[in-house]
Amino acid sequence: MVSKGRLEAFSDGVFAIVITLLAFDLKRPSPGPGMSLASALWDQWPAYIAYFVGFLQIGVMWLNHHRLFQQVREVDGVLLVLNLNLLLWVALVPFATGVVAEFLADGGQDAATAMVLFSAVLVANAISFVALFAWITHDERITGTLPPRAVVRAARIRFGIGIGAYAGALVLSFFVPVAALTVHAVMALYYTFDQATV
Amino acid sequence: MVSKGRLEAFSDGVFAIVITLLAFDLKRPSPGPGMSLASALWDQWPAYIAYFVGFLQIGVMWLNHHRLFQQVREVDGVLLVLNLNLLLWVALVPFATGVVAEFLADGGQDAATAMVLFSAVLVANAISFVALFAWITHDERITGTLPPRAVVRAARIRFGIGIGAYAGALVLSFFVPVAALTVHAVMALYYTFDQATV
Amino acid sequence: MVSKGRLEAFSDGVFAIVITLLAFDLKRPSPGPGMSLASALWDQWPAYIAYFVGFLQIGVMWLNHHRLFQQVREVDGVLLVLNLNLLLWVALVPFATGVVAEFLADGGQDAATAMVLFSAVLVANAISFVALFAWITHDERITGTLPPRAVVRAARIRFGIGIGAYAGALVLSFFVPVAALTVHAVMALYYTFDQATV
Amino acid sequence: MVSKGRLEAFSDGVFAIVITLLAFDLKRPSPGPGMSLASALWDQWPAYIAYFVGFLQIGVMWLNHHRLFQQVREVDGVLLVLNLNLLLWVALVPFATGVVAEFLADGGQDAATAMVLFSAVLVANAISFVALFAWITHDERITGTLPPRAVVRAARIRFGIGIGAYAGALVLSFFVPVAALTVHAVMALYYTFDQATV
Repeated sequence: MVSKGRLEAFSDGVFAIVITLLAFDLKRPSPGPGMSLASALWDQWPAYIAYFVGFLQIGVMWLNHHRLFQQVREVDGVLLVLNLNLLLWVALVPFATGVVAEFLADGGQDAATAMVLFSAVLVANAISFVALFAWITHDERITGTLPPRAVVRAARIRFGIGIGAYAGALVLSFFVPVAALTVHAVMALYYTFDQATV
Repeated sequence: MVSKGRLEAFSDGVFAIVITLLAFDLKRPSPGPGMSLASALWDQWPAYIAYFVGFLQIGVMWLNHHRLFQQVREVDGVLLVLNLNLLLWVALVPFATGVVAEFLADGGQDAATAMVLFSAVLVANAISFVALFAWITHDERITGTLPPRAVVRAARIRFGIGIGAYAGALVLSFFVPVAALTVHAVMALYYTFDQATV
Repeated sequence: MVSKGRLEAFSDGVFAIVITLLAFDLKRPSPGPGMSLASALWDQWPAYIAYFVGFLQIGVMWLNHHRLFQQVREVDGVLLVLNLNLLLWVALVPFATGVVAEFLADGGQDAATAMVLFSAVLVANAISFVALFAWITHDERITGTLPPRAVVRAARIRFGIGIGAYAGALVLSFFVPVAALTVHAVMALYYTFDQATV
Repeated sequence: MVSKGRLEAFSDGVFAIVITLLAFDLKRPSPGPGMSLASALWDQWPAYIAYFVGFLQIGVMWLNHHRLFQQVREVDGVLLVLNLNLLLWVALVPFATGVVAEFLADGGQDAATAMVLFSAVLVANAISFVALFAWITHDERITGTLPPRAVVRAARIRFGIGIGAYAGALVLSFFVPVAALTVHAVMALYYTFDQATV
């Protein structure tokens, strides 16, 4: 009953706002007495990396969302709810990014907690996307004609590897938070350049 | 004189921004001395529930708004004003959610005040939506052909029950704020899964 | 060279964000020791009135913008710049609203300053809109066929009265700030209900 | 594989949000004891100039983006990534504007640092736009038919001069920050009025 066009427009709106709010979450530094603005800006390096990673993650998610919906012909109720669930987790990325930006440089337990939160939100994003993908490709009502089985199976394997990598980063977050952020950055760059070759 | 398409696009924009700002309202915790980030995050539990409830409420409202406008063929001035009135209350949901997030855990009178505010904003949302619905279905100028009377009557009864439930949660907010939030969460989940079966 | 559709979509985006940010500017109250949340919320009354006035002003501006652009057939460079100028002032409304929300209740000189800022931003909005209107209706290149002269003249008189009323509220802001806010509220309500009868 | 329409809509969303957030970054002044709101507002003059410059820069960038995409017929992967890269830098403009707004009036080294950040973000914007432009006009797959060579060469020279001017402002920022902001304001005004004559 809901038209695909308006569902896409609504989702695009959320993606565009989330990706912009990431940057809005960069705080203006407040250098303490005797501290220069330059070094206060420099001390915010985890915020810049977190912004970069979050931006690429949301950007790639938007691209995947767009490609997935190109196959959709009929929107049903389950699809609506699964899409809303995905947006719920997408919208949490700036919050998680902000926590990393503030607590990563402190090191210690709080840095680990921040990275666990960040990784967990990305895992939830990945799972929500795969759930949407699985529903859309599970029978022919939604897509009209299903893509060939081999294609669907290949995509599922690819997404499975992706979730595995995110889960690995989640485990790593508990022990070596900076390494986990590095893994996220590498994955985001990989996915982005992967898009450039499609 | 205003085209339905641009009215929908404007409303979609407001819905998308409001649903995203809900998450932006999650504050980065500031753990006090000797307090870990993990427990500071944990202490924010009312914020997460409020985010979850607010997100589902706005999401369901967007779906209902979309379905309602699929029947609209002519936009008149009263419809414009009633739609603007609805958006005015929709845009207040993040503010109310933020107040709940900050004051619910304190307990006592302030927790009740926060929940009363939250419930009152949702009641105003429901009333505004029903006013829009009533105007759109009140004669044939707007919809071209009215849906069958029985369908309209059933929808009105359903909305009446909804307003009643919100009003009940409002009353409950004065006395047992946490229970009122639970009622809102259950209602939001019910409406969401109800969408999945349409 | 710029298509009307994309110009409208961009402007709609700005209007939707501005109208939503107005509500986001409502601050969560921080009741002092021994002060209840209820009275802290109550003390924010100028913020609620400012939100209400700002919301209606932006809503009505969006409607007028939409109606004006329905006449546009060709977008030229001057129109682009005048539209950008209008959006520049529209985007300042939440800032002005926030200043009123914070300083009106204090009374005295600061309340006057806040209302002068608010009124001045609305005057600039009105002038920017009239400039856009005047350009669009000044010859036939943009609209294809101009509306009848009498209609254009009537609209110009109406806008002239509007600017005069805003200018009056601006002068009043220096002396009786609360009265100026009341004038703005009445004008916003008048314009809104005026839309309902078109 | 990604449709041009949805890519434009997503980009427009980001531009509209960024241009609106610029104004949202204007802080409500907090006049100290014995200080009037009027003088506190007055002391924020760098914030107003930064808003004005940032607004025009984003507005002109949006116009150029729109014109460039009117030539696009096929969206490929590299274009997607280059467009995402442009949006990444566009979204940083409000952060840079905010830092200028807060630190320019202090003078000294911090004012220089703030202006260097601002100029560097604008240089990165300009380079990202030129990269997108170069890719789109580098062969006929994307545009269908390339514009005449002389037109492309003229545009490249024009963009080269633009990047040179931004780089000059960047160098100036180290030594005379206020002069650098003036250069940016003049350039933004020049580009804006240049649009009015197209």
